[in-house]
Amino acid sequence: MKDKYINALLKGTVNVLKTMASTNPKPGIPFTKGTKKTLGEVSGVIGFTGATLGAVVVSFSKACALKITSTMLMEDYTEINEEVKDAVGEITNMISGDARRNLEDIGMAFQAGIPTIIIGKGHEIKNKCNGPCYCFVIPFTCDGLEFFVEASFEC
Amino acid sequence: MKDKYINALLKGTVNVLKTMASTNPKPGIPFTKGTKKTLGEVSGVIGFTGATLGAVVVSFSKACALKITSTMLMEDYTEINEEVKDAVGEITNMISGDARRNLEDIGMAFQAGIPTIIIGKGHEIKNKCNGPCYCFVIPFTCDGLEFFVEASFEC
Repeated sequence: MKDKYINALLKGTVNVLKTMASTNPKPGIPFTKGTKKTLGEVSGVIGFTGATLGAVVVSFSKACALKITSTMLMEDYTEINEEVKDAVGEITNMISGDARRNLEDIGMAFQAGIPTIIIGKGHEIKNKCNGPCYCFVIPFTCDGLEFFVEASFEC
Repeated sequence: MKDKYINALLKGTVNVLKTMASTNPKPGIPFTKGTKKTLGEVSGVIGFTGATLGAVVVSFSKACALKITSTMLMEDYTEINEEVKDAVGEITNMISGDARRNLEDIGMAFQAGIPTIIIGKGHEIKNKCNGPCYCFVIPFTCDGLEFFVEASFEC
């Protein structure tokens, strides 16, 4: 089951960033949260309900958030302003939507809340399940810059 | 409608902290997000789906998170360790649960995802609705220490 969640989010992330930001993010090998630090500077968080409960986080370095927003909005962004924050929220929302469609195709229906954007140098993120869960991080590089998609779903 | 959300979260927060941490948080006057900075050091985020979409954030200063966890777990915490992070996640989950019961009592059924905990000095939080929404912050003090409950619900 964990592989199905990973697959749905991996496909969703690649598809959204290809379509919205004309970039081709390269996924690395997914790993279990806790084995490696994943500190971001701008992150989008979105809650999942339905087939089970979960949360998905898309966490960018400053350079990566600026690069992707600049490509997406066709304007040069050099600071994390309101437009960059909103773009990260929108990307999180769209990755969630694409992943949910992928999960629905295999018979799992989910709803999602609204994205919350977190801004802060080197912030740490921890999802907290009530009991056993599938927790994983998919690392990506995009034009040499790093970002992470991490998720937790209750078993 | 905004007042109903504020009321449900205000009652939920007071009730959970009274019950779990034997404290009596004093609510201040709710305000509109954006009019005042609300930077936290440990925050819990949880997504809402159902009657409408939303997100709720409970954001503590370091001192307040340590104080509440120490009282809740009856042990003296001086650093933001895994237990403090988990306690903030649990408090967020319980406030969400209490608020959802309060909203259900007035005919609005919500589900919630799992809490995501954010740790980082002075991180900023922004909820992003798809269209018009009710966005507000309820400030609280607890033994003289500050924390905030902020929420956004689509109209």
